[in-house]
Amino acid sequence: MANHVVPYQVAPSPDGKGLTRAVTGRDHTGALQEIRVVEERPLTIFLNSREIVTAMTIGDYPDYLALGFLRNQAMLSDADEVTGVDYDEELRVVVVRTAVETDHEEKLAKKTRTSGCAVGTVFGDMMEELNGLTLPPAQIKTTDLYALAAKINTTDSLYLTAGAIHGTVLCQGADPLVYMEDVGRHNAVDKVAGWMHATGAMAADKTLYTTGRLTSEMVMKCAMMGIPALASRSGFTAWGVELAQQVGLTLIGRMRGQRFICLAGEERLIWDANLSDVADEPRKASRKGARG
Amino acid sequence: MANHVVPYQVAPSPDGKGLTRAVTGRDHTGALQEIRVVEERPLTIFLNSREIVTAMTIGDYPDYLALGFLRNQAMLSDADEVTGVDYDEELRVVVVRTAVETDHEEKLAKKTRTSGCAVGTVFGDMMEELNGLTLPPAQIKTTDLYALAAKINTTDSLYLTAGAIHGTVLCQGADPLVYMEDVGRHNAVDKVAGWMHATGAMAADKTLYTTGRLTSEMVMKCAMMGIPALASRSGFTAWGVELAQQVGLTLIGRMRGQRFICLAGEERLIWDANLSDVADEPRKASRKGARG
Repeated sequence: MANHVVPYQVAPSPDGKGLTRAVTGRDHTGALQEIRVVEERPLTIFLNSREIVTAMTIGDYPDYLALGFLRNQAMLSDADEVTGVDYDEELRVVVVRTAVETDHEEKLAKKTRTSGCAVGTVFGDMMEELNGLTLPPAQIKTTDLYALAAKINTTDSLYLTAGAIHGTVLCQGADPLVYMEDVGRHNAVDKVAGWMHATGAMAADKTLYTTGRLTSEMVMKCAMMGIPALASRSGFTAWGVELAQQVGLTLIGRMRGQRFICLAGEERLIWDANLSDVADEPRKASRKGARG
Repeated sequence: MANHVVPYQVAPSPDGKGLTRAVTGRDHTGALQEIRVVEERPLTIFLNSREIVTAMTIGDYPDYLALGFLRNQAMLSDADEVTGVDYDEELRVVVVRTAVETDHEEKLAKKTRTSGCAVGTVFGDMMEELNGLTLPPAQIKTTDLYALAAKINTTDSLYLTAGAIHGTVLCQGADPLVYMEDVGRHNAVDKVAGWMHATGAMAADKTLYTTGRLTSEMVMKCAMMGIPALASRSGFTAWGVELAQQVGLTLIGRMRGQRFICLAGEERLIWDANLSDVADEPRKASRKGARG
Protein backbone atom coordinates (compact mmCIF):
# COMPACT_ATOMS: atom_id res chain seq x y z
CA MET A 1 0.00 0.00 0.00
CA ALA A 2 1.45 3.39 -0.94
CA ASN A 3 2.18 5.36 2.21
CA HIS A 4 1.25 8.78 0.88
CA VAL A 5 1.01 10.72 4.14
CA VAL A 6 -1.38 13.66 4.27
CA PRO A 7 -0.89 15.58 7.53
CA TYR A 8 -3.80 16.01 9.96
CA GLN A 9 -5.52 19.40 9.83
CA VAL A 10 -6.50 18.80 13.45
CA ALA A 11 -4.61 16.05 15.30
CA PRO A 12 -5.25 14.76 18.83
CA SER A 13 -3.39 16.52 21.69
CA PRO A 14 -2.26 13.66 23.96
CA ASP A 15 -0.03 16.11 25.87
CA GLY A 16 -2.50 19.01 25.73
CA LYS A 17 -2.40 21.23 28.82
CA GLY A 18 -5.36 20.63 31.10
CA LEU A 19 -6.72 17.67 29.15
CA THR A 20 -5.42 14.96 31.48
CA ARG A 21 -4.41 14.84 35.14
CA ALA A 22 -2.05 12.52 37.04
CA VAL A 23 -3.84 10.61 39.82
CA THR A 24 -2.26 8.18 42.28
CA GLY A 25 -3.96 5.03 43.51
CA ARG A 26 -3.13 1.43 44.31
CA ASP A 27 -2.99 -1.39 41.80
CA HIS A 28 -3.93 -5.06 42.05
CA THR A 29 -0.74 -5.85 43.98
CA GLY A 30 -1.39 -3.08 46.52
CA ALA A 31 1.45 -0.97 45.11
CA LEU A 32 1.13 2.77 44.61
CA GLN A 33 0.64 3.63 40.96
CA GLU A 34 0.22 6.93 39.16
CA ILE A 35 -1.88 7.05 36.02
CA ARG A 36 -3.15 9.82 33.78
CA VAL A 37 -6.93 10.29 33.58
CA VAL A 38 -8.89 12.57 31.27
CA GLU A 39 -10.53 15.73 32.54
CA GLU A 40 -14.31 16.15 32.38
CA ARG A 41 -15.90 19.56 32.83
CA PRO A 42 -19.30 21.12 32.32
CA LEU A 43 -19.60 23.58 29.42
CA THR A 44 -22.82 25.54 29.00
CA ILE A 45 -23.77 26.47 25.45
CA PHE A 46 -25.83 29.60 24.74
CA LEU A 47 -27.43 30.58 21.44
CA ASN A 48 -27.60 34.38 21.69
CA SER A 49 -29.29 35.07 25.05
CA ARG A 50 -30.75 31.60 25.50
CA GLU A 51 -29.12 28.79 27.51
CA ILE A 52 -29.37 25.61 25.42
CA VAL A 53 -27.54 22.77 27.15
CA THR A 54 -24.73 21.87 29.54
CA ALA A 55 -22.36 19.32 28.04
CA MET A 56 -19.72 17.32 29.92
CA THR A 57 -16.56 17.79 27.89
CA ILE A 58 -12.81 17.42 28.04
CA GLY A 59 -12.65 21.15 27.36
CA ASP A 60 -10.75 21.64 24.10
CA TYR A 61 -12.35 23.43 21.12
CA PRO A 62 -15.37 24.87 22.98
CA ASP A 63 -16.12 27.02 19.93
CA TYR A 64 -16.28 24.06 17.55
CA LEU A 65 -18.28 22.07 20.11
CA ALA A 66 -20.90 24.83 20.44
CA LEU A 67 -21.18 25.46 16.69
CA GLY A 68 -21.31 21.75 15.90
CA PHE A 69 -23.86 20.97 18.60
CA LEU A 70 -26.21 23.69 17.38
CA ARG A 71 -25.74 22.64 13.73
CA ASN A 72 -26.36 18.97 14.49
CA GLN A 73 -29.48 19.80 16.52
CA ALA A 74 -30.82 21.83 13.57
CA MET A 75 -30.79 24.96 15.74
CA LEU A 76 -28.36 26.71 13.40
CA SER A 77 -28.64 26.49 9.63
CA ASP A 78 -26.58 27.68 6.67
CA ALA A 79 -28.93 30.68 6.47
CA ASP A 80 -28.00 31.87 9.97
CA GLU A 81 -25.03 34.24 9.88
CA VAL A 82 -22.78 33.57 12.89
CA THR A 83 -21.36 36.91 14.04
CA GLY A 84 -19.24 35.56 16.86
CA VAL A 85 -18.47 32.71 19.26
CA ASP A 86 -17.38 33.90 22.70
CA TYR A 87 -15.87 31.53 25.24
CA ASP A 88 -15.47 32.41 28.92
CA GLU A 89 -13.07 29.87 30.37
CA GLU A 90 -13.75 30.84 33.98
CA LEU A 91 -17.53 30.63 33.73
CA ARG A 92 -17.30 27.61 31.38
CA VAL A 93 -19.78 29.24 29.06
CA VAL A 94 -19.70 29.55 25.28
CA VAL A 95 -22.06 31.90 23.45
CA VAL A 96 -22.84 31.59 19.73
CA ARG A 97 -24.18 34.86 18.34
CA THR A 98 -26.12 35.21 15.11
CA ALA A 99 -26.90 38.36 13.10
CA VAL A 100 -30.64 37.71 13.41
CA GLU A 101 -32.23 35.91 16.37
CA THR A 102 -33.00 32.43 15.06
CA ASP A 103 -36.51 31.02 15.20
CA HIS A 104 -35.00 27.87 16.70
CA GLU A 105 -34.58 29.80 19.92
CA GLU A 106 -38.21 30.83 19.95
CA LYS A 107 -39.30 27.30 19.13
CA LEU A 108 -37.15 25.96 21.95
CA ALA A 109 -38.49 28.50 24.44
CA LYS A 110 -42.06 27.63 23.57
CA LYS A 111 -41.56 23.91 23.74
CA THR A 112 -39.58 23.78 26.97
CA ARG A 113 -42.33 25.64 28.79
CA THR A 114 -44.74 22.88 27.96
CA SER A 115 -42.54 19.82 28.03
CA GLY A 116 -40.07 20.38 30.85
CA CYS A 117 -36.91 19.57 28.94
CA ALA A 118 -35.51 20.41 25.56
CA VAL A 119 -34.01 17.02 24.90
CA GLY A 120 -37.18 15.36 23.63
CA THR A 121 -38.32 18.29 21.53
CA VAL A 122 -34.96 18.99 19.94
CA PHE A 123 -34.90 15.34 19.06
CA GLY A 124 -38.27 15.76 17.34
CA ASP A 125 -36.85 18.63 15.29
CA MET A 126 -33.93 16.47 14.16
CA MET A 127 -36.31 13.75 13.02
CA GLU A 128 -38.24 16.34 11.00
CA GLU A 129 -35.03 17.55 9.37
CA LEU A 130 -34.03 13.98 8.49
CA ASN A 131 -37.33 13.22 6.78
CA GLY A 132 -36.45 15.32 3.76
CA LEU A 133 -32.81 14.26 3.58
CA THR A 134 -31.01 11.96 1.15
CA LEU A 135 -27.22 11.81 1.28
CA PRO A 136 -25.09 11.88 -1.90
CA PRO A 137 -24.41 8.32 -3.18
CA ALA A 138 -20.63 8.27 -2.64
CA GLN A 139 -18.73 5.05 -3.27
CA ILE A 140 -16.39 3.68 -0.58
CA LYS A 141 -13.38 1.46 -1.28
CA THR A 142 -12.48 -1.18 1.29
CA THR A 143 -8.77 -0.41 0.69
CA ASP A 144 -9.48 3.10 1.97
CA LEU A 145 -11.36 1.77 5.00
CA TYR A 146 -8.47 -0.51 5.99
CA ALA A 147 -5.92 2.28 5.42
CA LEU A 148 -7.95 4.67 7.59
CA ALA A 149 -8.26 2.19 10.44
CA ALA A 150 -4.52 1.47 10.37
CA LYS A 151 -3.62 5.18 10.42
CA ILE A 152 -6.16 6.15 13.08
CA ASN A 153 -5.26 3.28 15.42
CA THR A 154 -1.58 4.22 15.39
CA THR A 155 -2.07 7.99 15.79
CA ASP A 156 -0.89 9.35 19.16
CA SER A 157 -4.04 10.24 21.05
CA LEU A 158 -5.53 10.92 24.44
CA TYR A 159 -7.02 7.45 24.19
CA LEU A 160 -3.57 5.89 24.04
CA THR A 161 -2.36 8.17 26.88
CA ALA A 162 -5.26 8.02 29.30
CA GLY A 163 -8.07 5.84 27.90
CA ALA A 164 -11.75 6.37 28.75
CA ILE A 165 -12.30 8.72 25.84
CA HIS A 166 -14.00 8.61 22.46
CA GLY A 167 -12.65 9.69 19.10
CA THR A 168 -14.27 10.85 15.87
CA VAL A 169 -12.26 11.33 12.70
CA LEU A 170 -13.22 13.18 9.54
CA CYS A 171 -11.63 11.35 6.61
CA GLN A 172 -11.26 11.75 2.86
CA GLY A 173 -10.36 8.71 0.78
CA ALA A 174 -7.56 6.96 2.68
CA ASP A 175 -6.64 10.01 4.76
CA PRO A 176 -7.79 10.99 8.25
CA LEU A 177 -8.01 14.82 8.32
CA VAL A 178 -9.54 15.95 11.61
CA TYR A 179 -9.30 13.76 14.73
CA MET A 180 -11.33 15.02 17.70
CA GLU A 181 -11.54 13.31 21.10
CA ASP A 182 -13.92 13.84 24.02
CA VAL A 183 -15.30 12.12 27.12
CA GLY A 184 -18.71 12.42 25.51
CA ARG A 185 -18.71 10.60 22.18
CA HIS A 186 -21.34 12.99 20.83
CA ASN A 187 -19.11 15.93 21.68
CA ALA A 188 -16.31 14.51 19.54
CA VAL A 189 -18.69 14.37 16.56
CA ASP A 190 -20.05 17.84 17.28
CA LYS A 191 -16.50 19.26 17.37
CA VAL A 192 -15.89 17.82 13.90
CA ALA A 193 -19.18 19.40 12.73
CA GLY A 194 -18.12 22.75 14.21
CA TRP A 195 -14.76 22.56 12.45
CA MET A 196 -16.51 21.80 9.15
CA HIS A 197 -18.87 24.74 9.63
CA ALA A 198 -16.07 27.14 10.57
CA THR A 199 -13.81 26.11 7.67
CA GLY A 200 -16.54 25.55 5.07
CA ALA A 201 -15.36 21.99 4.44
CA MET A 202 -17.20 19.90 1.86
CA ALA A 203 -19.11 16.90 3.22
CA ALA A 204 -20.08 14.85 0.15
CA ASP A 205 -16.59 13.34 -0.35
CA LYS A 206 -15.93 12.53 3.30
CA THR A 207 -16.18 9.47 5.54
CA LEU A 208 -16.69 9.74 9.29
CA TYR A 209 -14.95 7.27 11.60
CA THR A 210 -16.06 6.95 15.21
CA THR A 211 -14.93 4.78 18.09
CA GLY A 212 -18.46 4.81 19.47
CA ARG A 213 -21.48 2.70 18.73
CA LEU A 214 -23.65 3.32 15.69
CA THR A 215 -26.77 4.48 17.53
CA SER A 216 -29.66 6.55 16.19
CA GLU A 217 -28.10 9.73 17.53
CA MET A 218 -24.74 9.03 15.89
CA VAL A 219 -26.40 8.30 12.53
CA MET A 220 -28.55 11.44 12.80
CA LYS A 221 -25.54 13.62 13.49
CA CYS A 222 -23.60 12.15 10.56
CA ALA A 223 -26.62 12.70 8.28
CA MET A 224 -27.08 16.27 9.55
CA MET A 225 -23.44 16.87 8.61
CA GLY A 226 -24.13 15.63 5.06
CA ILE A 227 -21.46 12.92 5.26
CA PRO A 228 -22.45 9.83 3.23
CA ALA A 229 -20.43 7.15 5.09
CA LEU A 230 -19.96 6.26 8.77
CA ALA A 231 -17.58 3.56 10.05
CA SER A 232 -16.85 2.22 13.52
CA ARG A 233 -15.07 -0.53 15.40
CA SER A 234 -18.18 -0.78 17.55
CA GLY A 235 -21.60 -2.29 16.98
CA PHE A 236 -25.04 -1.12 15.90
CA THR A 237 -28.47 -0.44 17.28
CA ALA A 238 -31.53 -1.40 15.22
CA TRP A 239 -32.75 2.18 14.96
CA GLY A 240 -29.33 3.40 13.89
CA VAL A 241 -29.44 0.89 11.01
CA GLU A 242 -33.01 1.88 10.10
CA LEU A 243 -32.19 5.60 9.95
CA ALA A 244 -29.05 4.97 7.89
CA GLN A 245 -31.10 2.99 5.36
CA GLN A 246 -33.69 5.80 5.27
CA VAL A 247 -31.22 8.61 4.49
CA GLY A 248 -28.85 6.63 2.25
CA LEU A 249 -25.92 6.50 4.64
CA THR A 250 -23.34 3.73 4.17
CA LEU A 251 -22.99 2.22 7.65
CA ILE A 252 -20.02 0.02 8.50
CA GLY A 253 -19.52 -1.45 11.97
CA ARG A 254 -17.58 -4.07 13.95
CA MET A 255 -14.50 -3.06 11.96
CA ARG A 256 -11.56 -4.96 13.44
CA GLY A 257 -8.57 -6.17 11.49
CA GLN A 258 -9.92 -7.69 8.28
CA ARG A 259 -13.47 -7.99 9.52
CA PHE A 260 -16.40 -5.58 9.28
CA ILE A 261 -20.08 -5.69 8.46
CA CYS A 262 -22.00 -3.17 6.40
CA LEU A 263 -25.71 -2.93 7.31
CA ALA A 264 -26.81 0.00 5.13
CA GLY A 265 -25.70 1.29 1.72
CA GLU A 266 -23.69 -1.87 0.96
CA GLU A 267 -24.38 -1.33 -2.78
CA ARG A 268 -21.95 1.61 -2.62
CA LEU A 269 -19.06 -0.41 -1.15
CA ILE A 270 -16.27 -1.51 -3.49
CA TRP A 271 -14.49 -4.63 -2.21
CA ASP A 272 -11.11 -3.81 -3.81
CA ALA A 273 -8.84 -4.92 -0.96
CA ASN A 274 -6.76 -8.05 -1.13
CA LEU A 275 -7.45 -9.50 2.32
CA SER A 276 -4.03 -11.15 2.47
CA ASP A 277 -2.57 -7.60 2.57
CA VAL A 278 -4.65 -6.68 5.63
CA ALA A 279 -3.44 -7.61 9.12
CA ASP A 280 -6.11 -9.47 11.07
CA GLU A 281 -6.85 -9.17 14.77
CA PRO A 282 -7.61 -12.07 17.06
CA ARG A 283 -11.37 -12.24 17.39
CA LYS A 284 -11.48 -11.17 21.03
CA ALA A 285 -8.67 -8.64 20.99
CA SER A 286 -9.50 -4.98 20.65
CA ARG A 287 -7.93 -1.61 20.98
CA LYS A 288 -11.36 -0.19 21.53
CA GLY A 289 -14.43 -1.88 22.86
CA ALA A 290 -17.69 -2.70 21.21
CA ARG A 291 -19.45 -0.57 23.76
CA GLY A 292 -19.71 3.12 23.46
CA MET B 1 -12.41 -20.90 45.21
CA ALA B 2 -15.69 -22.32 46.51
CA ASN B 3 -18.31 -22.19 43.79
CA HIS B 4 -21.29 -21.37 45.97
CA VAL B 5 -23.77 -20.29 43.34
CA VAL B 6 -26.40 -17.74 44.34
CA PRO B 7 -28.97 -17.36 41.55
CA TYR B 8 -29.58 -13.98 39.93
CA GLN B 9 -32.66 -12.14 41.19
CA VAL B 10 -32.70 -10.40 37.80
CA ALA B 11 -30.60 -11.99 35.03
CA PRO B 12 -30.03 -10.64 31.51
CA SER B 13 -32.52 -11.70 28.82
CA PRO B 14 -30.34 -12.46 25.77
CA ASP B 15 -33.36 -14.04 24.05
CA GLY B 16 -35.87 -11.49 25.34
CA LYS B 17 -38.68 -10.76 22.89
CA GLY B 18 -38.26 -7.40 21.18
CA LEU B 19 -34.82 -6.69 22.66
CA THR B 20 -32.83 -7.61 19.54
CA ARG B 21 -33.57 -7.77 15.83
CA ALA B 22 -31.97 -9.80 13.01
CA VAL B 23 -30.49 -7.55 10.32
CA THR B 24 -28.80 -8.66 7.10
CA GLY B 25 -25.82 -6.94 5.56
CA ARG B 26 -22.58 -7.78 3.80
CA ASP B 27 -19.34 -8.65 5.54
CA HIS B 28 -15.70 -7.89 4.66
CA THR B 29 -15.67 -10.62 2.00
CA GLY B 30 -18.81 -9.26 0.34
CA ALA B 31 -20.88 -12.20 1.58
CA LEU B 32 -24.39 -11.79 2.96
CA GLN B 33 -24.41 -12.06 6.73
CA GLU B 34 -27.23 -11.87 9.27
CA ILE B 35 -26.46 -10.52 12.73
CA ARG B 36 -28.56 -9.60 15.73
CA VAL B 37 -28.55 -5.95 16.82
CA VAL B 38 -30.08 -4.43 19.94
CA GLU B 39 -33.24 -2.36 19.79
CA GLU B 40 -33.19 1.31 20.81
CA ARG B 41 -36.43 3.16 21.48
CA PRO B 42 -37.45 6.45 23.00
CA LEU B 43 -39.22 6.26 26.39
CA THR B 44 -40.67 9.41 27.90
CA ILE B 45 -40.75 9.58 31.69
CA PHE B 46 -43.41 11.61 33.49
CA LEU B 47 -43.51 12.48 37.18
CA ASN B 48 -47.24 12.94 37.84
CA SER B 49 -48.40 15.39 35.17
CA ARG B 50 -44.96 16.69 34.26
CA GLU B 51 -42.82 15.37 31.37
CA ILE B 52 -39.29 14.95 32.69
CA VAL B 53 -37.08 13.38 30.02
CA THR B 54 -36.99 11.15 26.96
CA ALA B 55 -34.47 8.33 27.31
CA MET B 56 -33.23 6.09 24.52
CA THR B 57 -33.60 2.58 25.91
CA ILE B 58 -33.70 -1.06 24.91
CA GLY B 59 -37.19 -1.13 26.36
CA ASP B 60 -37.19 -3.69 29.18
CA TYR B 61 -38.15 -2.72 32.75
CA PRO B 62 -39.61 0.74 31.92
CA ASP B 63 -40.99 0.93 35.48
CA TYR B 64 -37.59 0.37 37.11
CA LEU B 65 -35.97 2.76 34.64
CA ALA B 66 -38.43 5.55 35.47
CA LEU B 67 -38.24 5.02 39.24
CA GLY B 68 -34.46 4.74 39.20
CA PHE B 69 -33.97 7.76 36.98
CA LEU B 70 -36.11 9.95 39.23
CA ARG B 71 -34.39 8.60 42.38
CA ASN B 72 -30.91 9.15 40.96
CA GLN B 73 -31.81 12.70 39.87
CA ALA B 74 -33.02 13.45 43.41
CA MET B 75 -36.51 14.10 42.05
CA LEU B 76 -37.99 11.32 44.15
CA SER B 77 -36.96 10.72 47.77
CA ASP B 78 -37.74 8.12 50.44
CA ALA B 79 -40.34 10.56 51.78
CA ASP B 80 -42.32 10.52 48.52
CA GLU B 81 -44.93 7.77 48.52
CA VAL B 82 -45.16 6.22 45.03
CA THR B 83 -48.80 5.31 44.41
CA GLY B 84 -48.30 3.80 40.96
CA VAL B 85 -46.12 3.41 37.89
CA ASP B 86 -48.10 3.21 34.64
CA TYR B 87 -46.49 2.16 31.39
CA ASP B 88 -48.12 2.68 28.01
CA GLU B 89 -46.23 0.50 25.54
CA GLU B 90 -47.85 2.04 22.47
CA LEU B 91 -47.18 5.65 23.44
CA ARG B 92 -43.79 4.73 24.95
CA VAL B 93 -44.62 6.70 28.05
CA VAL B 94 -44.15 5.78 31.69
CA VAL B 95 -45.80 7.81 34.46
CA VAL B 96 -44.66 7.70 38.08
CA ARG B 97 -47.41 8.89 40.43
CA THR B 98 -46.84 10.07 43.99
CA ALA B 99 -49.39 10.56 46.78
CA VAL B 100 -48.44 14.23 47.10
CA GLU B 101 -47.11 16.33 44.21
CA THR B 102 -43.38 16.55 44.85
CA ASP B 103 -41.66 19.92 45.16
CA HIS B 104 -39.06 18.62 42.72
CA GLU B 105 -41.64 19.05 39.98
CA GLU B 106 -42.28 22.64 41.00
CA LYS B 107 -38.54 23.30 41.19
CA LEU B 108 -38.07 21.80 37.75
CA ALA B 109 -40.90 23.82 36.25
CA LYS B 110 -39.50 27.05 37.66
CA LYS B 111 -35.96 26.37 36.54
CA THR B 112 -36.74 25.20 33.02
CA ARG B 113 -38.59 28.42 32.32
CA THR B 114 -35.45 30.39 32.96
CA SER B 115 -32.77 28.05 31.69
CA GLY B 116 -34.20 26.35 28.64
CA CYS B 117 -33.34 22.78 29.58
CA ALA B 118 -33.59 20.73 32.71
CA VAL B 119 -30.31 18.88 32.22
CA GLY B 120 -28.09 21.57 33.70
CA THR B 121 -30.37 22.38 36.61
CA VAL B 122 -31.09 18.79 37.59
CA PHE B 123 -27.37 18.30 37.56
CA GLY B 124 -27.04 21.22 39.99
CA ASP B 125 -29.56 19.54 42.30
CA MET B 126 -27.57 16.31 42.28
CA MET B 127 -24.41 18.20 43.24
CA GLU B 128 -26.30 19.77 46.16
CA GLU B 129 -27.50 16.35 47.31
CA LEU B 130 -23.97 14.96 47.14
CA ASN B 131 -22.51 17.73 49.27
CA GLY B 132 -24.07 16.33 52.44
CA LEU B 133 -23.38 12.69 51.60
CA THR B 134 -20.85 10.24 53.03
CA LEU B 135 -21.14 6.58 52.09
CA PRO B 136 -20.80 3.79 54.70
CA PRO B 137 -17.14 2.62 54.97
CA ALA B 138 -17.62 -0.92 53.66
CA GLN B 139 -14.57 -3.13 53.15
CA ILE B 140 -14.04 -4.87 49.80
CA LYS B 141 -12.06 -8.09 49.35
CA THR B 142 -10.12 -8.54 46.14
CA THR B 143 -11.16 -12.25 46.10
CA ASP B 144 -14.77 -11.04 45.82
CA LEU B 145 -13.88 -8.61 43.02
CA TYR B 146 -12.19 -11.34 40.97
CA ALA B 147 -15.06 -13.78 41.61
CA LEU B 148 -17.60 -11.17 40.50
CA ALA B 149 -15.73 -10.37 37.30
CA ALA B 150 -15.45 -14.07 36.43
CA LYS B 151 -19.15 -14.72 37.04
CA ILE B 152 -20.37 -11.59 35.23
CA ASN B 153 -18.17 -12.11 32.19
CA THR B 154 -19.47 -15.63 31.67
CA THR B 155 -23.15 -14.84 32.23
CA ASP B 156 -25.31 -15.14 29.08
CA SER B 157 -26.23 -11.61 28.14
CA LEU B 158 -27.42 -9.34 25.37
CA TYR B 159 -23.82 -8.15 25.13
CA LEU B 160 -22.65 -11.65 24.20
CA THR B 161 -25.58 -12.04 21.76
CA ALA B 162 -25.62 -8.67 20.03
CA GLY B 163 -22.92 -6.39 21.46
CA ALA B 164 -23.22 -2.59 21.52
CA ILE B 165 -24.85 -2.58 24.95
CA HIS B 166 -23.84 -1.68 28.49
CA GLY B 167 -24.34 -3.69 31.64
CA THR B 168 -24.63 -2.77 35.32
CA VAL B 169 -24.67 -5.42 38.02
CA LEU B 170 -25.70 -5.08 41.64
CA CYS B 171 -23.50 -7.41 43.70
CA GLN B 172 -23.16 -8.57 47.29
CA GLY B 173 -19.86 -10.11 48.37
CA ALA B 174 -18.86 -12.52 45.62
CA ASP B 175 -22.37 -12.77 44.12
CA PRO B 176 -23.91 -10.79 41.26
CA LEU B 177 -27.63 -10.35 42.10
CA VAL B 178 -29.22 -8.03 39.53
CA TYR B 179 -27.76 -7.69 36.02
CA MET B 180 -29.38 -4.98 33.91
CA GLU B 181 -28.41 -4.10 30.32
CA ASP B 182 -29.26 -1.11 28.16
CA VAL B 183 -28.08 0.82 25.11
CA GLY B 184 -27.65 3.82 27.42
CA ARG B 185 -25.19 2.95 30.18
CA HIS B 186 -26.95 5.34 32.54
CA ASN B 187 -30.24 3.54 31.93
CA ALA B 188 -28.71 0.26 33.06
CA VAL B 189 -27.69 1.90 36.36
CA ASP B 190 -31.08 3.58 36.74
CA LYS B 191 -32.87 0.25 36.24
CA VAL B 192 -30.82 -1.23 39.08
CA ALA B 193 -31.75 1.80 41.23
CA GLY B 194 -35.42 1.33 40.37
CA TRP B 195 -35.26 -2.36 41.31
CA MET B 196 -33.64 -1.46 44.64
CA HIS B 197 -36.33 1.13 45.33
CA ALA B 198 -39.16 -1.24 44.40
CA THR B 199 -37.82 -4.15 46.47
CA GLY B 200 -36.47 -2.11 49.37
CA ALA B 201 -32.99 -3.61 48.92
CA MET B 202 -30.23 -2.54 51.30
CA ALA B 203 -27.38 -0.57 49.71
CA ALA B 204 -24.65 -0.44 52.37
CA ASP B 205 -23.45 -4.03 51.80
CA LYS B 206 -23.49 -3.90 47.99
CA THR B 207 -20.97 -3.34 45.22
CA LEU B 208 -21.94 -1.99 41.83
CA TYR B 209 -20.20 -3.32 38.71
CA THR B 210 -20.52 -1.44 35.44
CA THR B 211 -19.12 -2.02 31.97
CA GLY B 212 -19.06 1.74 31.39
CA ARG B 213 -16.50 4.37 32.25
CA LEU B 214 -16.24 5.84 35.72
CA THR B 215 -17.40 9.35 34.88
CA SER B 216 -18.82 11.98 37.23
CA GLU B 217 -22.36 10.96 36.34
CA MET B 218 -21.73 7.29 37.04
CA VAL B 219 -20.13 8.10 40.41
CA MET B 220 -23.01 10.44 41.31
CA LYS B 221 -25.59 7.80 40.51
CA CYS B 222 -23.78 5.17 42.58
CA ALA B 223 -23.51 7.62 45.50
CA MET B 224 -27.19 8.58 45.21
CA MET B 225 -27.99 4.87 45.47
CA GLY B 226 -25.97 4.67 48.70
CA ILE B 227 -23.68 1.94 47.35
CA PRO B 228 -20.14 2.25 48.80
CA ALA B 229 -18.14 0.55 46.00
CA LEU B 230 -18.08 0.87 42.21
CA ALA B 231 -16.00 -1.32 39.90
CA SER B 232 -15.48 -1.33 36.14
CA ARG B 233 -13.37 -2.81 33.37
CA SER B 234 -13.25 0.69 31.90
CA GLY B 235 -11.28 3.79 32.83
CA PHE B 236 -11.81 6.96 34.82
CA THR B 237 -12.40 10.65 34.36
CA ALA B 238 -10.70 13.09 36.73
CA TRP B 239 -13.99 14.46 38.04
CA GLY B 240 -15.34 10.95 38.64
CA VAL B 241 -12.29 10.27 40.83
CA GLU B 242 -12.67 13.59 42.67
CA LEU B 243 -16.35 12.99 43.46
CA ALA B 244 -15.65 9.43 44.64
CA GLN B 245 -12.99 10.72 47.03
CA GLN B 246 -15.42 13.39 48.27
CA VAL B 247 -18.26 11.00 49.14
CA GLY B 248 -16.12 8.06 50.34
CA LEU B 249 -16.80 5.74 47.42
CA THR B 250 -14.30 2.95 46.72
CA LEU B 251 -13.59 3.32 43.00
CA ILE B 252 -11.96 0.47 41.08
CA GLY B 253 -11.29 0.69 37.35
CA ARG B 254 -9.39 -0.90 34.48
CA MET B 255 -10.29 -4.28 35.95
CA ARG B 256 -9.04 -6.92 33.49
CA GLY B 257 -7.80 -10.33 34.48
CA GLN B 258 -5.51 -9.85 37.49
CA ARG B 259 -5.10 -6.14 36.98
CA PHE B 260 -7.07 -3.21 38.34
CA ILE B 261 -6.40 0.19 39.84
CA CYS B 262 -8.21 1.74 42.77
CA LEU B 263 -8.23 5.55 42.71
CA ALA B 264 -10.50 6.32 45.69
CA GLY B 265 -11.16 4.55 49.00
CA GLU B 266 -8.17 2.25 48.59
CA GLU B 267 -7.85 2.09 52.43
CA ARG B 268 -11.00 -0.05 52.41
CA LEU B 269 -9.64 -2.64 49.98
CA ILE B 270 -8.40 -5.96 51.38
CA TRP B 271 -5.83 -7.58 49.08
CA ASP B 272 -6.65 -11.18 50.10
CA ALA B 273 -6.42 -12.80 46.66
CA ASN B 274 -3.57 -15.06 45.69
CA LEU B 275 -2.79 -13.71 42.21
CA SER B 276 -1.59 -17.08 40.99
CA ASP B 277 -5.21 -18.27 41.39
CA VAL B 278 -6.51 -15.51 39.12
CA ALA B 279 -6.47 -15.94 35.34
CA ASP B 280 -4.78 -13.02 33.62
CA GLU B 281 -5.73 -11.43 30.32
CA PRO B 282 -3.28 -10.35 27.65
CA ARG B 283 -2.75 -6.60 28.09
CA LYS B 284 -4.54 -5.58 24.89
CA ALA B 285 -7.27 -8.21 24.92
CA SER B 286 -10.66 -7.28 26.24
CA ARG B 287 -14.18 -8.52 26.31
CA LYS B 288 -15.31 -4.97 26.81
CA GLY B 289 -13.60 -1.77 25.82
CA ALA B 290 -12.16 0.99 27.93
CA ARG B 291 -14.56 3.38 26.31
CA GLY B 292 -18.08 3.75 27.45
